[in-house]
Amino acid sequence: MLSLFGSPERDAHRITTSMNDRFLRACRREPVDCTPVWFMRQAGRYMPEYRELRAKYTLLEICKKPELATQVTLQPLRLGVDACILFADILLPLEPMGASFEFAKGEGPVIHQPIENRSQIEKLRVIEPHEGLGYVLDAIAMCKRELNGRVPLIGFAGAPFTLASYLIEGGKSAHFAKTKRLMYSDPEAWHLLMSKLSDVVRLYLHAQIKAGADAVQLFDSWVGQLSAADYCEYVQPHVRGILQDVMKAGVPVIHFGTGTYSLLEPMRDAGGTVIGLDWRTPIEDGWRRVGYDRAVQGNLDPTLLFAPQPVLLKHVDRVLAEAGGRAGHIFNLGHGILPETPVENVQAVVEHVHKMSAR
Amino acid sequence: MLSLFGSPERDAHRITTSMNDRFLRACRREPVDCTPVWFMRQAGRYMPEYRELRAKYTLLEICKKPELATQVTLQPLRLGVDACILFADILLPLEPMGASFEFAKGEGPVIHQPIENRSQIEKLRVIEPHEGLGYVLDAIAMCKRELNGRVPLIGFAGAPFTLASYLIEGGKSAHFAKTKRLMYSDPEAWHLLMSKLSDVVRLYLHAQIKAGADAVQLFDSWVGQLSAADYCEYVQPHVRGILQDVMKAGVPVIHFGTGTYSLLEPMRDAGGTVIGLDWRTPIEDGWRRVGYDRAVQGNLDPTLLFAPQPVLLKHVDRVLAEAGGRAGHIFNLGHGILPETPVENVQAVVEHVHKMSAR
Repeated sequence: MLSLFGSPERDAHRITTSMNDRFLRACRREPVDCTPVWFMRQAGRYMPEYRELRAKYTLLEICKKPELATQVTLQPLRLGVDACILFADILLPLEPMGASFEFAKGEGPVIHQPIENRSQIEKLRVIEPHEGLGYVLDAIAMCKRELNGRVPLIGFAGAPFTLASYLIEGGKSAHFAKTKRLMYSDPEAWHLLMSKLSDVVRLYLHAQIKAGADAVQLFDSWVGQLSAADYCEYVQPHVRGILQDVMKAGVPVIHFGTGTYSLLEPMRDAGGTVIGLDWRTPIEDGWRRVGYDRAVQGNLDPTLLFAPQPVLLKHVDRVLAEAGGRAGHIFNLGHGILPETPVENVQAVVEHVHKMSAR
Repeated sequence: MLSLFGSPERDAHRITTSMNDRFLRACRREPVDCTPVWFMRQAGRYMPEYRELRAKYTLLEICKKPELATQVTLQPLRLGVDACILFADILLPLEPMGASFEFAKGEGPVIHQPIENRSQIEKLRVIEPHEGLGYVLDAIAMCKRELNGRVPLIGFAGAPFTLASYLIEGGKSAHFAKTKRLMYSDPEAWHLLMSKLSDVVRLYLHAQIKAGADAVQLFDSWVGQLSAADYCEYVQPHVRGILQDVMKAGVPVIHFGTGTYSLLEPMRDAGGTVIGLDWRTPIEDGWRRVGYDRAVQGNLDPTLLFAPQPVLLKHVDRVLAEAGGRAGHIFNLGHGILPETPVENVQAVVEHVHKMSAR
């Protein structure tokens, strides 16, 4: 696979040493020897080697030091996953845009000055990725060298609605009341914010691909809070702008959200080579609605990883059965791995998916 | 409408003084002069007269003193709503069952000893409502006297999944990981817990009807976290047991949840005279799926109450248009009124619904 932006060295490297291309083949709906599997947040707190590193460094320190980010990104390789996803955070672009934040212990992200009005939105900078996000691009290049073609590397960014919700709520939210208040009350300010975030995200994803990412995922984690009508009015044009442009770079683009059973068609229409489905969307049903001209990714409930293995693996079988062996299914969870998840269960899922789906 | 359990005095009272029966007529899909409207959490923090009372009493004190609960229940009458809902909390039955809790400032409910194992479940008491919940029944009787037939009174209870999630998580939850872990890991213990909660809820709703409630709502607020397959296996039999039995009492039963776009058919099959729809389920679509032999309730996004009135009322019009003037629509939000909501917007919605839907 040739990147439109790749250097000859890197592309040569890709072509000669790529061993496991199951994930990329499935993204393109090509036949595979068995269903590829990776997990959102597969590098993280549930892994002892990650916790060991986190005892010494903060989350942001790990993100900002390419050698640490690379080390963490590659940790899940021992589980047999078919792709690595860069260790980073969707909020990283906010800092160079002018919205500083921190990860408060046990509380998740805290935006220092949440957005309350249009003048704050006007002050946000539309940055080029090398302004303040160079460390992410360096980490991608380093990951690619270290991976040495073993599995593809997935880059990612938060989608504008999800990023806007953190900026406006100041952190995680239950009802997204402030976000929607701005959206409904001042649509012009809303669209300005969305358009600034979209520009940054679009350039950021292009830069990640240029730096070596073999695929990218757009995380619209909280978009399932919106009705389809509001999604189409306030979100879809922006996401479409990002996805249609990034898809031109020639690598697979995964479009992901949770609680999106009522949004599948407009999300599909916005774009994405692969559409993410969560556990509330049965794959059979979701894939039919999305259309078989797209690949789908999902959709095990992450809490099933806490169940005894016979129960867990029965549900894995159900997911595979719903996908029906059709080319273009990437096995994943419906959302990220939870911190207390037993590592051995994650590994058991990888082995089981590979074994049960072997063609 | 005669209650199966009513005393002759109360029923006579109902028959002679009931002025506004729009809500009850709509529940039965009978023609109405205009669409009835009430709001989940219509008595609460957004109202100045409630905040004044809360300055003197805790939430639990208000629940437990029938004269205070009655006062709060009737506060939204000034907004012109077509029904009052008893001021109470879905967690109240947990205390006499043996699971004490408190409302921690700003944090929501905190269960003192969250359930972690089967032996704790075995110790939970299946109480009769007069054991420890007599104050709720007294408040219902007092509300009925004070209402004097102006509008119907709605009683309510939490559904077993939602109650179980609080018991197991110890409070609110983002991922319901502990709840689902118990559900998947020890289905026997799970079903024991669900069956104890269901017995309590069933008896409690019957007692509320006997005390004078003109309708009851079952709140399965968090059930939208489950896939339809898991809902059918772990929840539906219990909810069906409650609803089918309570519906025999002859008053309308509203079956409510949020994020239930993928669960509408199995929730409908479990029962309910009226099915609640949230803002992610367009009423047109939801009603078609639920079937026109049920009434539906909903579905304005509660955050729209923060929007400027022209925007808000445009969305109210959309909801009414989606309901298409069909008999059997009760206007409500998709979830409870949020604390900071401007009272004047709530009032504007009531007036607008009545005006625009006048037949």
